[in-house]
Amino acid sequence: MIKTFPYLLIDISKCEQNIAFMVQKATKANVFLRPHFKTHQSLAVGELFRKQGVNRITVSSVTMAEYFAGGGWNDITIAFPFVPQMAQRVNTLAQGVDLNVTFSSTQNLFASIDRVESRVGVFVEVDVGHGRSGVAVDNTRELALMVNRIGSKPNLVFKGFLTHAGHSYSARGGEEVEKLHTEALSKLAKLRSFWVDQFPDLAISYGDTPTCSLSDEFWGISEIRPGNFVFYDVMQSQIGSCSTSQVAVALICPVVDVFPVQQKLIIHGGAVHLSQDRVVIDGSDCYGFICRFDGKRWSTPVPNAMVTSLSQEHGVITYSGNALDGIKPGDLLAILPVHGCLTVDCMGQMFDSEGNTYDVLPKNIR
Amino acid sequence: MIKTFPYLLIDISKCEQNIAFMVQKATKANVFLRPHFKTHQSLAVGELFRKQGVNRITVSSVTMAEYFAGGGWNDITIAFPFVPQMAQRVNTLAQGVDLNVTFSSTQNLFASIDRVESRVGVFVEVDVGHGRSGVAVDNTRELALMVNRIGSKPNLVFKGFLTHAGHSYSARGGEEVEKLHTEALSKLAKLRSFWVDQFPDLAISYGDTPTCSLSDEFWGISEIRPGNFVFYDVMQSQIGSCSTSQVAVALICPVVDVFPVQQKLIIHGGAVHLSQDRVVIDGSDCYGFICRFDGKRWSTPVPNAMVTSLSQEHGVITYSGNALDGIKPGDLLAILPVHGCLTVDCMGQMFDSEGNTYDVLPKNIR
Repeated sequence: MIKTFPYLLIDISKCEQNIAFMVQKATKANVFLRPHFKTHQSLAVGELFRKQGVNRITVSSVTMAEYFAGGGWNDITIAFPFVPQMAQRVNTLAQGVDLNVTFSSTQNLFASIDRVESRVGVFVEVDVGHGRSGVAVDNTRELALMVNRIGSKPNLVFKGFLTHAGHSYSARGGEEVEKLHTEALSKLAKLRSFWVDQFPDLAISYGDTPTCSLSDEFWGISEIRPGNFVFYDVMQSQIGSCSTSQVAVALICPVVDVFPVQQKLIIHGGAVHLSQDRVVIDGSDCYGFICRFDGKRWSTPVPNAMVTSLSQEHGVITYSGNALDGIKPGDLLAILPVHGCLTVDCMGQMFDSEGNTYDVLPKNIR
Repeated sequence: MIKTFPYLLIDISKCEQNIAFMVQKATKANVFLRPHFKTHQSLAVGELFRKQGVNRITVSSVTMAEYFAGGGWNDITIAFPFVPQMAQRVNTLAQGVDLNVTFSSTQNLFASIDRVESRVGVFVEVDVGHGRSGVAVDNTRELALMVNRIGSKPNLVFKGFLTHAGHSYSARGGEEVEKLHTEALSKLAKLRSFWVDQFPDLAISYGDTPTCSLSDEFWGISEIRPGNFVFYDVMQSQIGSCSTSQVAVALICPVVDVFPVQQKLIIHGGAVHLSQDRVVIDGSDCYGFICRFDGKRWSTPVPNAMVTSLSQEHGVITYSGNALDGIKPGDLLAILPVHGCLTVDCMGQMFDSEGNTYDVLPKNIR
């Protein structure tokens, strides 16, 4: 039961369409889909994937791996670099499920490898341009050192190389995304050709929501790991990965106060609900798009209106034109979040239009 | 028991000192302290206040009011503008505790007033310069309209005027804070003088962490409502409200990877842990200061080092000089958050150095 406001509404039909789109794309490209479940952190949303035949998943923490293992998922990759603090729980968890872990450098590998005692699959993270973590894709010497060290441990099964082309989030438009995607594929193809004789089953694990949404070409890739696409959001619409009509979550917020002269509204919906992730649109910070809401479904976004500032519980909408004329305190508006993954994490639960609850991994079981 | 990393460590002794500082200040200035509990959202931290004689509190939502009422707090102000959606729960809650609610304009008041059936105290929010919500403090006509309308309902007890001088967060240094504080006090004194004959017990409720930390003068004020001071944070240290040695929470993060040539570290600690609130220091976004950690206590911040970017689970520390030489994957660092309130909200639980848990209002009971 929806007890209070704001609440996070999920459009199940849009979710299912977004999942179907990516399942079909993966099938057509002959790659496995191993979606990143950090976006929703929800067993209930996971079931929507399972219904469409998905049986491999990606997570970003050992807690998330335990949570989904508890929900019957038994082929899980933790696509976050291993730290020694994870070892004990990984050793336990790997006794019950097929678990893959990730190492991001020699230092990262050497710090933990002797603590891994269960049989686990291992990915080595490479960097194809994002510049956050992973070994530079052309650093053959370091990669060889890591692969050999992994090979020296009988319980570790070297699976292949994993990368996150997170620089796609800075791209705007299909052409820019396609360009960096093609560069990434080229680098990964070269990497693959170097190792495939020694490891005929070598996996190349790749794929974020922008590249997987916008491209149909995945030559040389074994599996894709997009996550955000299940919900999409304002940021993805700005990148060009989706239209705003595909966004499948919205924060339902009561209007608190109206300032028609200043063309400003205050809503109950702040940083603890939406997160403070933002995009810059026409020189202004944007924390969300504004839709009308009829109690069940939200409209297309109102033009020339957005959330332009947030404090802990307040959101400030500024607008021009007459699109929000007549709104009064107590009316409900639906806010499309800038970053759906963080909004879900902030809200901790979701509801569909029938009032059914969609659980999210609780914060306090970590 | 601390199960996993990152976790949020609370220094109880610093908390108690921060509370004592504000309790003494309020006593000396002859104002009530009604601390804002949205900062910690924790019954356990609330008990630290109760031990120092605090018995009135402020919250920012009806859910938070219910939570603290359940912990024995019976004098609660919801310092967030009323929306009609709150009415039913407010009516129920007000039967058990002394509850004050807030209206921020005539539109805001008229939308809900007839739904309030229980006996509640009422504050009218005025704006003394923040520009977010509330009636302009000199708009006598609108204030009179609201006060009269409140007076027409026998179950509503007009308490006075409430304001949040949130523009103090843009100030830097004691002088700037003192200046806007003095302006706010002057405006509120004028407001008070206008109404005090009609309402001899008129309350003026005021006070944010910057002004309450930096000033000792509260003439004309009845109660102060700072919240953040219990923990303080990097933002408050940049405003000048505290020293970094007073910051009472830190996120304990494992180092994931080290890049000594680039003077960069990757930690497990991202936007879902710290929040994305930031301050700009020397032209760079800062998401946290870096302290060494011995397993129980954290050091003073390492100079020339800060968290400069965040993704969902990763944090990137950049530094200069040799202060972080020798750090390796698996080492623990303590990150002082930029905005403690949001970090607590993100983390959902805290631990002290003995491993005791400090609960936080769960996300999924809302």
